[in-house]
Order: sequence, then C-alpha cells, then structure tokens
Amino acid sequence: MIHSPVDIAEKLSLFSEHWSPKTVARLNDYEIKVVKVQGEFTWHFHYDTDELFLVTNGQLTIQRRDGNVMLEPGQLFVVPRGVEHCPITDGEVHAVLIEPTGVVNTGDAGGSLTAAPDNSLA
Amino acid sequence: MIHSPVDIAEKLSLFSEHWSPKTVARLNDYEIKVVKVQGEFTWHFHYDTDELFLVTNGQLTIQRRDGNVMLEPGQLFVVPRGVEHCPITDGEVHAVLIEPTGVVNTGDAGGSLTAAPDNSLA
Repeated sequence: MIHSPVDIAEKLSLFSEHWSPKTVARLNDYEIKVVKVQGEFTWHFHYDTDELFLVTNGQLTIQRRDGNVMLEPGQLFVVPRGVEHCPITDGEVHAVLIEPTGVVNTGDAGGSLTAAPDNSLA
Repeated sequence: MIHSPVDIAEKLSLFSEHWSPKTVARLNDYEIKVVKVQGEFTWHFHYDTDELFLVTNGQLTIQRRDGNVMLEPGQLFVVPRGVEHCPITDGEVHAVLIEPTGVVNTGDAGGSLTAAPDNSLA
C-alpha cells in the first residue's frame, strides 16, 4: 500500500506533552492537528478564523464568556472567530484541532503556552 | 448550556440514505459533513480542492489509480486535489468529510449519485 491513512490514536501515542498541537495532515491551506491537553489553558481568541475541536478521549470543557461547551469523545465544536475561549479539563483529554495553517494556539494572548508553529507529525 | 457540541454518531442516526453527505458544522468557508456509504461510488476528482475522509464506523477503501487506501475507524486520509478516486466498501461505512463549501460530491463526473448541495443537519 503506497498510501497510508493517518491513525489518530497512533499519532497521539507518539508524544506526551500537553498544549502542543502536532500537525498530522494538511487539507488545502488548513492543518489537521492532534493535541493532548490537561488543566486550564489561557483565555484567548483568534480574530480571523474559526477553530474546530473534536474530542477523541476524555471530556473537554470549552469555556466561553457566555457559557461553557462540554465535549465528550465523538463530539465536535467550532469556536467562531473573535470569540474568547479557554479550554479546561479535569483529566487528560485527546483532541483533533482543525484550523488554517499558521494559526497561533494562544491567539491574541501569547504567553508561555504558545506552541511552536512547526510541530509536525505529518 | 446555550452552546451544544455536535455529536457525530447522533447526527448519523438521523438518516439512512447512502452517498448523501449532510453538513453538521461550518469552519470558515469549509463544511464538516457526515455520510453513510455502501458499495462503490463513482470515479471522480476535484480539480480545485483536497478532500478529507475520517472513518467512524466500518472499513472504507479509497481506490486511486496508483493504489488503494484502507481506512478503519479513527483513521483519516486527505485525497489531494486533482487525484482521481473512488470510495468502495463491503458493508456500511460511516464517515466525516471535510471540504470547502459548495464542493460537489461527484466532482468532475456528475451522474446519478450527485448529492444536493444544501443537505444540512447543522
């Protein structure tokens, strides 16, 4: 087989750090990333793009100023551009993120949780 | 909770027809769709866009002229723009498709399997 699919769980098994999305595939000018998260991230927004979260393990809460969204495995949510949000978890959560190439994970906020832009497992 | 996640399995439970993708979410100018497929589709390509397949149930084979790609649940594959392909299955397969808004499912080929462009469960 000269073309192989991307196995999401297998890609997630290749690293252990949190809040550091890894690109596993590209779709036009978008990146498909996998990420492990635990605890609370930082409040931020992306002024020019929506952001898709798809949970594959654990329970992820996306805090918004107007209410929380709770995601179980097999559930997805799109945070609209410009909407301030802050992911938070009780335990470790595995998720797929989809957003345009070059998006900075901390958006407008910056800070120590800002991930390198070229983290790739693709 | 004023914001609800999209439950992929729940959306798939709402219809039974094959080869008729339903939009369940939007990400900028892209659509997230769910689809049930069975049997063989039609050979086609999309001249201006890549297309993402993520299998959630069953086993999907994406035939390409240069070899097949086999996808199990939890695996994804991006068919690059311009690459002729034809999905085929043994039994029923459930999948998520991601592609720009307005893409016609049969690409250049057209024909009786062409789905309505406004199938939405979002």
